[in-house]
Amino acid sequence: MITLYGDVTKTRANRCSWMLNEIGIEHSRVPLAFRPGETRPPEFLALNPNGKCPTLVDGDFVLFESLAINLHLARRYGGLLGPQTPEEDALMAQWSLWVATEVEKPLLLTSAARYLFAPCEPGGEEEAIALKKLARPWSVLDAHLRDRDFIIGDRLTVADINVAAVMHFIPIAGVDVSHWPAMKRWLEACLERPAAIDLRSVDFRVPRPSTSRDVFAMFL
Amino acid sequence: MITLYGDVTKTRANRCSWMLNEIGIEHSRVPLAFRPGETRPPEFLALNPNGKCPTLVDGDFVLFESLAINLHLARRYGGLLGPQTPEEDALMAQWSLWVATEVEKPLLLTSAARYLFAPCEPGGEEEAIALKKLARPWSVLDAHLRDRDFIIGDRLTVADINVAAVMHFIPIAGVDVSHWPAMKRWLEACLERPAAIDLRSVDFRVPRPSTSRDVFAMFL
Repeated sequence: MITLYGDVTKTRANRCSWMLNEIGIEHSRVPLAFRPGETRPPEFLALNPNGKCPTLVDGDFVLFESLAINLHLARRYGGLLGPQTPEEDALMAQWSLWVATEVEKPLLLTSAARYLFAPCEPGGEEEAIALKKLARPWSVLDAHLRDRDFIIGDRLTVADINVAAVMHFIPIAGVDVSHWPAMKRWLEACLERPAAIDLRSVDFRVPRPSTSRDVFAMFL
Repeated sequence: MITLYGDVTKTRANRCSWMLNEIGIEHSRVPLAFRPGETRPPEFLALNPNGKCPTLVDGDFVLFESLAINLHLARRYGGLLGPQTPEEDALMAQWSLWVATEVEKPLLLTSAARYLFAPCEPGGEEEAIALKKLARPWSVLDAHLRDRDFIIGDRLTVADINVAAVMHFIPIAGVDVSHWPAMKRWLEACLERPAAIDLRSVDFRVPRPSTSRDVFAMFL
């Protein structure tokens, strides 16, 4: 029995619901979401002491970190979505860590200025700094995808799902990525998949901090 | 034949040299380090288009992302340092992603104020913001380690190595973690291991950006 904790419109549980939908495995969902500072129920903290969603319960095995949950689901239940060789396994972890450390926070800041803090003017100096950080990793991914349709091998894998799931704010926030056409094509193909429906249905806003310094501090 | 690219005193290659030392496997090292903006040699970019160290070459298999490199080395060569079950495998990815997303950047900022930007006054508002972010993940890790000596099972694994390697700036920058005694004891035991020598020999300074906003932007 698999249970996914986390509201798919307000938490990173949407990354894991994509994977579960692709696999087509029966599971139940507990649509929790917490506002910053809100007290978590003790029974949820007993599952994940970080108090964060998503959290996965697979039988009696409990796992947190959305991208690690997807790696686990792909490996155990995903067939070709998961690794077929030790090298693929290593590359799936590599791309998951890559998107989490190189892309996630600057893209969140860019998206915040354009979407999360809305109504808010897009553009501005904060976005310029964030986009400058994104230019290098996006050029790497674009070059990687220039001659192929998927990140690893010739099929959709958890590497595509984890990287595209982090990057789903690009269409939501209207970030222009036409400078990276191979990446843009790949991302659109990924996020248009029926199983990725929850990545297209984000409904989450936060107040804009009062100073530019505090905006950056928010994404530390 | 295994080759580790990256100067172990100036890049995150020290995380991977720790793993290689623990395994005791023969390998060669290419001590590259690049200053920000410096042009990378094309032959290195051909290995890792991100132009970042560490990069691992294992036979004809090339891998980047320091924590993914360690997961691969542990799984392929590490014996008990690596996973013995699918659940351990998932937890090793979970803790690696956890430390990369919850701890690394706020700890780097704290360390920057106390060490990397030196000579520089420790403390200040930037450090207070960073330490506030670290309190929750550190409380989680401290509680996890209260009744055990290692993160997973009853032995040292790549989970300990990856989490402690990211946290090696705590002793270097003199960050007070006495509020989290189980974590402190565990971290000291990890970093005192002979194989972790390169984590104790950091030699890396950067200029402090001129405004507090730019300090935060640096760690985005």
